[in-house]
Amino acid sequence: RRGLAGYVVPHADEHQNEYLPPRAERLRYLTGFSGSAGIAVVLKEDAALFVDGRYTLQAAAQVDTAIFQIRDYPEERPETWLPGKVAAGDKIGVDSWLVTAAGADRLGKALEARDAALVLVEDDIFDTFWANRPAPPAGAVSFRDEARAGEAASAKIARVQAELAKTRADAFVVTDPHDLAWLFNIRGRDVAHTPLPLGFALVPATGRPELFLAPAKLSNAVRDRLAETAEIEHPEQLTKRIADRAALGQTLAFDDDTAPARLVRAAEAAGGKAPRGRSPIALMKARKNAAEIDGIRRAHVTDGAALVRFLAWFDQAAPKGATEIEAVEALEHFRRAAGAVDVSFPTISGSGPNGAIVHYRVTRPTDRKVQPGEFFLLDSGAQFEDGTTDVTRTIAIGAVSAEMRDRFTRVLKGHIAVARALFPKGTPGSQIDALARQPLWRAGLDFDHGTGHGVGAYLSVHEGPARLSKAGTVPLEPGMLLSNEPGYYKAGAYGIRIENLVLVREPAPVAGGERPMMSFETVTLAPIDRRAIDRALLDADETAWLDAYHARTRAALGPLLPPAERAWLETATEPLGR
Amino acid sequence: RRGLAGYVVPHADEHQNEYLPPRAERLRYLTGFSGSAGIAVVLKEDAALFVDGRYTLQAAAQVDTAIFQIRDYPEERPETWLPGKVAAGDKIGVDSWLVTAAGADRLGKALEARDAALVLVEDDIFDTFWANRPAPPAGAVSFRDEARAGEAASAKIARVQAELAKTRADAFVVTDPHDLAWLFNIRGRDVAHTPLPLGFALVPATGRPELFLAPAKLSNAVRDRLAETAEIEHPEQLTKRIADRAALGQTLAFDDDTAPARLVRAAEAAGGKAPRGRSPIALMKARKNAAEIDGIRRAHVTDGAALVRFLAWFDQAAPKGATEIEAVEALEHFRRAAGAVDVSFPTISGSGPNGAIVHYRVTRPTDRKVQPGEFFLLDSGAQFEDGTTDVTRTIAIGAVSAEMRDRFTRVLKGHIAVARALFPKGTPGSQIDALARQPLWRAGLDFDHGTGHGVGAYLSVHEGPARLSKAGTVPLEPGMLLSNEPGYYKAGAYGIRIENLVLVREPAPVAGGERPMMSFETVTLAPIDRRAIDRALLDADETAWLDAYHARTRAALGPLLPPAERAWLETATEPLGR
Repeated sequence: RRGLAGYVVPHADEHQNEYLPPRAERLRYLTGFSGSAGIAVVLKEDAALFVDGRYTLQAAAQVDTAIFQIRDYPEERPETWLPGKVAAGDKIGVDSWLVTAAGADRLGKALEARDAALVLVEDDIFDTFWANRPAPPAGAVSFRDEARAGEAASAKIARVQAELAKTRADAFVVTDPHDLAWLFNIRGRDVAHTPLPLGFALVPATGRPELFLAPAKLSNAVRDRLAETAEIEHPEQLTKRIADRAALGQTLAFDDDTAPARLVRAAEAAGGKAPRGRSPIALMKARKNAAEIDGIRRAHVTDGAALVRFLAWFDQAAPKGATEIEAVEALEHFRRAAGAVDVSFPTISGSGPNGAIVHYRVTRPTDRKVQPGEFFLLDSGAQFEDGTTDVTRTIAIGAVSAEMRDRFTRVLKGHIAVARALFPKGTPGSQIDALARQPLWRAGLDFDHGTGHGVGAYLSVHEGPARLSKAGTVPLEPGMLLSNEPGYYKAGAYGIRIENLVLVREPAPVAGGERPMMSFETVTLAPIDRRAIDRALLDADETAWLDAYHARTRAALGPLLPPAERAWLETATEPLGR
Repeated sequence: RRGLAGYVVPHADEHQNEYLPPRAERLRYLTGFSGSAGIAVVLKEDAALFVDGRYTLQAAAQVDTAIFQIRDYPEERPETWLPGKVAAGDKIGVDSWLVTAAGADRLGKALEARDAALVLVEDDIFDTFWANRPAPPAGAVSFRDEARAGEAASAKIARVQAELAKTRADAFVVTDPHDLAWLFNIRGRDVAHTPLPLGFALVPATGRPELFLAPAKLSNAVRDRLAETAEIEHPEQLTKRIADRAALGQTLAFDDDTAPARLVRAAEAAGGKAPRGRSPIALMKARKNAAEIDGIRRAHVTDGAALVRFLAWFDQAAPKGATEIEAVEALEHFRRAAGAVDVSFPTISGSGPNGAIVHYRVTRPTDRKVQPGEFFLLDSGAQFEDGTTDVTRTIAIGAVSAEMRDRFTRVLKGHIAVARALFPKGTPGSQIDALARQPLWRAGLDFDHGTGHGVGAYLSVHEGPARLSKAGTVPLEPGMLLSNEPGYYKAGAYGIRIENLVLVREPAPVAGGERPMMSFETVTLAPIDRRAIDRALLDADETAWLDAYHARTRAALGPLLPPAERAWLETATEPLGR
């Protein structure tokens, strides 16, 4: 009916969110595939689903492969596959809200090379055939108390406006809901695992911002308080507001990572300039202030005590053959009891060979009992109002092999190299990533993920712009919160990951040195399994770091624990020398 | 006469060369400033010269500061300074051959924000007033023998054409003379220190390339042989040839680093597409083939023997108070005797506090005798037909302080960390840079230059695209030749740098490991001053590396040396343990 030769359906919502509201699960509705990343292309006689390596098996199991070919992303992608499938004159559609302007450029270019074209569709075609489609999320918006936020929304807005003045843009369009939450000191309940209010904002270089939030999310009290700093508007007004400003010749700056093509094109079509780049809010949000840091430390004491209660329980349950799902349930029990609002992401609970699957998600069919001689890998986190946590521990079940202890200790050495690092202002994350890999590279080993990602303050567990990876070009700055999580994975056998969160400290003098150096404060508090360590592989500095870390963990968490768990902690945190 | 409110004069030629032919020394003619980097802006009532920190003092001494203000680059630059100086409607000129398209974009944008404009001037205004201006260079072009080049020009051209086919460009415009020299297996004599033939080429996606070289540079024999693979054209034809192709709607790809705005604009003005990016030749040229690697190894044996003869001489001359200039003269004598065509850059010969000036160039007024208790830093290199060398040694004169030995040893530890590194495919240079700095960062120390730059094969001593620095995002690849040169500088006191060239090896298995790892082969051969080392700071692996390096140096160079110098080398390369 629309004259389209094909349609592209990404796993995405209007904000390029990691976790989608049910209404935005178009890809699952269309294909049956429930993974967190993927993109489908439907042609008249052909259809393909592009998923990355971690989802190849899952996609094949969930999707009717008589209809959808499963293609390996990123080796193949719509922009490389489609040009071989289209004829000159073909029009391929995509929902203009679900693709970024950058993504639309890439796809459009690939099609133009075949004299085909990308059509940015402005309405949601799924509305025409998806019966009983879930309603849009309408989670209540609440304020973050200022003691935890540490800075008034008005002050944050002024900072964004100062940035706009530098770049001479007339307004910045806030399209990332994490930015929105941070800027207005609000939180929401629109998606799982992250307290996001889905919405948009327009921050003009001078004057009051406009905040686009569905009315159903706002109590009168919240609305009135928000109205003190912003004009509250219906999200349906957003495109028009942008076009109106553009028609005056204004320059509207967009976040290249999340801005929907729809909005960028609307600005351009109305005659405005629409430069795209990194959101000015991203770096402000990444640098936690003193109040946020206090909260982050508190959250990690709370979370550490819950994790220790779990670990003590697990040491009892493991010899009896606890399962991966039982472990998840026990851990979530202890975290809820400690006041967690939600888990910060679906727990990765992998025993033996399942631990080698980096993004493993236990399901009933894959659930297994832990076995002696295995490693059990548990990567989990929680959302507390004080802060977001993310921690991985790898636990030895009974006696593990010399090879396993060698690998565990090399991962630990890499973890400690990051934890102890001193580095000057301007150091990009890639340089810290290299330190984590040294003990593995030296032995002809490596791991296929970054060493660390940014983490929000009661926000997303995956936050930009800095990261510790070979592609981490953003310089680390004081107040950034990052994960330190080197690993090692032996397919079909076992996986190892040791993850703590670290805060970047202000540069400080070094005894005998000339230049102040930044360093990391490890905020995660939980024992690292001493039974998995090959002590001969640790040097004196590394042993001293581990002993000091364990002493700090014991001192911080012991007072919060019942006697039996406190006794367990004391054993688990004894110095290595003993 | 031209209606311009100002004129921008960069230190540049039509190829963005590091070393300029005399005719292109416009900045020196205009201002008196003879440094290797700078840019002047002349307005009707005002003029400024922008130079970086290493040239602040030199510029103030050479330039009439009643006419030219000296401004600190890069804190200030024409694009930040000019907008505060121009009025609406002003036109600022720049020679369209001396500015890249990217540079013109930046400057143009800054001026447009003030309703002023950049004018790309097509002729050389210096011709109208520079009396007795030197003639354009007309160095004879010669062929690189195929045994040294390792690959026929026709095969290289085919590889470039295969790259063009991938990007769907109709032609690539070769604007970097290093690319030109590599592609056609030719060398020239147009600038100092680098055997460059200045010229351009057009490589079409299919068919014969066009090579634009001044007729005076070509003997009949060379011209005839070149004509076997390319159409030889006069450089004056280049702009028209580009415009002719563009007028047919062709896509002409340009090297963003060197393509003059003149050529890019000519393509665009004629209706063609002119995408800019990294030259496809840059990566090909950086990955040395087996024949080039053989030549590089031979060059370093030859150069190492010459350097050892110098070092043996210097150990005799230093106690008698040899001067920096005497050292340069002696070193150049030994290198010439060994067959060097030229030095690969002006030697840095700095004793005591002069060694702390990273880009120090000794002159009569600054020349000083070396003194006991000082370090003497000597950074030098040569052009051999077999290859290009670049080596830095820091020599202790008599007994040096414990602090000096501590710093020297930390620099050496960083040097060895790079030399011994194992790393997987895909590792960017920034990650190797971090290894070199670890021993310094740990002590609150650092150095303000990259750890390494690429080096050509009988070409430029500074070659892209890879480098070892925090901004080094290009992945290292087998066959790349890079410098490994960490340092430490104490202003007013002393400087330390230890530099060898290293070749990236193919990935190789690691005993007991799973993944092949790349590594570096150190090709520079010359003793590292054992008298400057604090042995207690080296661990067993580092000591073993140094001893093995010295043993290899002794074995390779000893047979080439007269008896007295061989005896000196044997002492200088004794194992540390003794």
